[in-house]
Amino acid sequence: MKNVKHLECINCGKTYPAEPGVYTCPDCGPEGILDVIYDYDYIKSRVSKESFKENREYTIWRYTDFLPIKPDSARPRLRVGWTPLYDTAVLAEAIGLDKLYMKDDGQNPTASLKDRASAIAVVKAMEEGAKLIACSSTGNAASSLAGNAASVGMRTCIFVPQRAPQGKIAQLQIFGATVISVQGDYREAFQLSAEAIKKYGWYNRNAAINPYLAEGKKTVSLEICEQLDWQVPDWVVFSVGDGCTIGGAYKGFLDLYNVGFIDRLPKFLGVQASGCDPLTRAFISGGKMEPTAENTLADSIAVGVPRNPEKALRAVRKTGGVYINVSDDEILAAMRLLGNTSGIFGEPAGVAGLAGLKKAVAEGIIKRNETVVCAVTGNGLKDVNNAIKAAGEPMKVNPNLDELVSALEQRPGFFDYLNQ
Amino acid sequence: MKNVKHLECINCGKTYPAEPGVYTCPDCGPEGILDVIYDYDYIKSRVSKESFKENREYTIWRYTDFLPIKPDSARPRLRVGWTPLYDTAVLAEAIGLDKLYMKDDGQNPTASLKDRASAIAVVKAMEEGAKLIACSSTGNAASSLAGNAASVGMRTCIFVPQRAPQGKIAQLQIFGATVISVQGDYREAFQLSAEAIKKYGWYNRNAAINPYLAEGKKTVSLEICEQLDWQVPDWVVFSVGDGCTIGGAYKGFLDLYNVGFIDRLPKFLGVQASGCDPLTRAFISGGKMEPTAENTLADSIAVGVPRNPEKALRAVRKTGGVYINVSDDEILAAMRLLGNTSGIFGEPAGVAGLAGLKKAVAEGIIKRNETVVCAVTGNGLKDVNNAIKAAGEPMKVNPNLDELVSALEQRPGFFDYLNQ
Repeated sequence: MKNVKHLECINCGKTYPAEPGVYTCPDCGPEGILDVIYDYDYIKSRVSKESFKENREYTIWRYTDFLPIKPDSARPRLRVGWTPLYDTAVLAEAIGLDKLYMKDDGQNPTASLKDRASAIAVVKAMEEGAKLIACSSTGNAASSLAGNAASVGMRTCIFVPQRAPQGKIAQLQIFGATVISVQGDYREAFQLSAEAIKKYGWYNRNAAINPYLAEGKKTVSLEICEQLDWQVPDWVVFSVGDGCTIGGAYKGFLDLYNVGFIDRLPKFLGVQASGCDPLTRAFISGGKMEPTAENTLADSIAVGVPRNPEKALRAVRKTGGVYINVSDDEILAAMRLLGNTSGIFGEPAGVAGLAGLKKAVAEGIIKRNETVVCAVTGNGLKDVNNAIKAAGEPMKVNPNLDELVSALEQRPGFFDYLNQ
Repeated sequence: MKNVKHLECINCGKTYPAEPGVYTCPDCGPEGILDVIYDYDYIKSRVSKESFKENREYTIWRYTDFLPIKPDSARPRLRVGWTPLYDTAVLAEAIGLDKLYMKDDGQNPTASLKDRASAIAVVKAMEEGAKLIACSSTGNAASSLAGNAASVGMRTCIFVPQRAPQGKIAQLQIFGATVISVQGDYREAFQLSAEAIKKYGWYNRNAAINPYLAEGKKTVSLEICEQLDWQVPDWVVFSVGDGCTIGGAYKGFLDLYNVGFIDRLPKFLGVQASGCDPLTRAFISGGKMEPTAENTLADSIAVGVPRNPEKALRAVRKTGGVYINVSDDEILAAMRLLGNTSGIFGEPAGVAGLAGLKKAVAEGIIKRNETVVCAVTGNGLKDVNNAIKAAGEPMKVNPNLDELVSALEQRPGFFDYLNQ
């Protein structure tokens, strides 16, 4: 890996070689999360805006020069990344913006942004000769790991909290993972996975522990910039749970800044659920993150003890951004708004970003003339129960035209289309 | 549309101009399905294998010269098509083939192949100045129509049979469609939609009626060929319900043959569920299609009265192919096999093709050394209940290492990975 200099502890600054078995800083413990430090001069010698114009690899692997993997390493076979960036004019108008792009990361192979991280995990595990990868997850990290690992015959063992939705569990089982439903919350699932990984020596895909996963997630930012022809939006919006996604997204923009592809960073809007907002609280208080309850239907961001608070706060603080909370009702409303106006179906955590964006615009934090990119981090099909909650039940009609006509005539607004 | 000559009745051969309002042949009634006839000389003057090498539009719109739309027509904003074609070596070996590719059409924006048809429906509706599009559907045609229409602010009214799975309904509701759950089977939903469309003059997206939809579906074949660098596989495999998908797929290969991109057609393997197999029966008897019951968990192909039997039978008969049946258990087993070996998650109808392929290889219909492309027509997240049926429940463990260790030791084969 000529493009990687070393790993650096974000807590104490000590550096370590980027070698197998190195996870967190031994001196700082779990808080000593390591950051991958690149040789940007080397990367600059390898890529340019022109080289990307010629590049036909429309997956995250177009960015191999920015990734902490050996160039010739085996890769999972799923098509991860290069998800669509939609110019959503009707939605923009609905929430009071001139220009809004939605990055639909629910279009990844296992239907969430987490595929970006899991693809890297599988590459690193294969580089190290590992035979089993383990992780704990609220669901998406798990299914992405199981799917990407299955594509190359790698075994997985997945620890999920009791509340993980059935759709996510079904995916895991179909992908052949050994699924352990820990009868407790996310914290307990995480803890048990850590103990088992230590005991058995499995490869560890826990995002905040493994320094390489955020590097996979950062590809979402590389894509956003390239899809905008290297123009930097004024704001980027991410929902935040564990903190690894927003931390990774920040790293992506930093990389592009460091190689001179862009000349500034966007402001980051981090969005948490009101019922589980440890990072919003830390952002407002300016102090350390304190644990909170996990009371939200947006299960993918229901993380009371984020494992990566430093990177998550850094992304927002260093860019002049903001953390904001949204209620579950606001999340469900955002799901409807997004689907109605753009044909994108996001899971609750996947649309929490949009809910927060709507609020930030209404509160004047984001101005109408600022360009915004908002990520949809997971597909709504992953959590149908909440979609039903958001959308309501269909009309029920017997197979009879008269009955249908009468039902339609009673439906408020149905015939409005005639006047459009 | 300089590339289109006219519409031709597949029953009596009469031709009609490709103009708004023309659906089926007035002389033949519902059996007079129209086929779009192209000017292949004109198309040849517009495209070449070289022009496709330069084409960066990685959606179905790269094939506009093969599509019955005006070149400058407005299009839905979702990214439809150019789904991944995976070389699935482990799966190939598992079922006894040297070379097998899976075309994962569950990666379309609303997670099924039907997005290809619905995208065309939305374009045609906009060309005609329509204000509302209606259809009846077992689910996927509906959600794809609702999503694609929502992306451009077009209203939709969708008729679904009572049994459509919740996930598919939720998608519709989120996309803002007016959903009418007809308390009856698919036939009754179709009939009621036809009556309402006639009464209100809505744009009709019913696939067998509207001659343009199969033209969207054919893009799956154009992609398969291009992704194989214009090599023709020996066999292509599709699950079959209404018959429009396999009919469309056949048309795609025919188009490529007619412009000289390929020099032969692949054989078509059509796969039906044992509990709903009118086309297999017609294929075996050599006679006309007779209605059957709709007894299968693969809801997307549970069509007792296919509306497009002629095109569906033609695809198989004209290519020297075969129709084959699979049981629901074989479908669920195929779901596990596909997920385990390749990381692809298909819905029951989406993996029925693979189940039939496995059987066709076992029965010697398809030989080991023949190259096969098998379509996965919809994503497994659309029908989680059946995925749970296929995959079983996860291990339940309290947050305690000793309990976990003991549970893993009792799990047959878990520690086999140590010997790999």
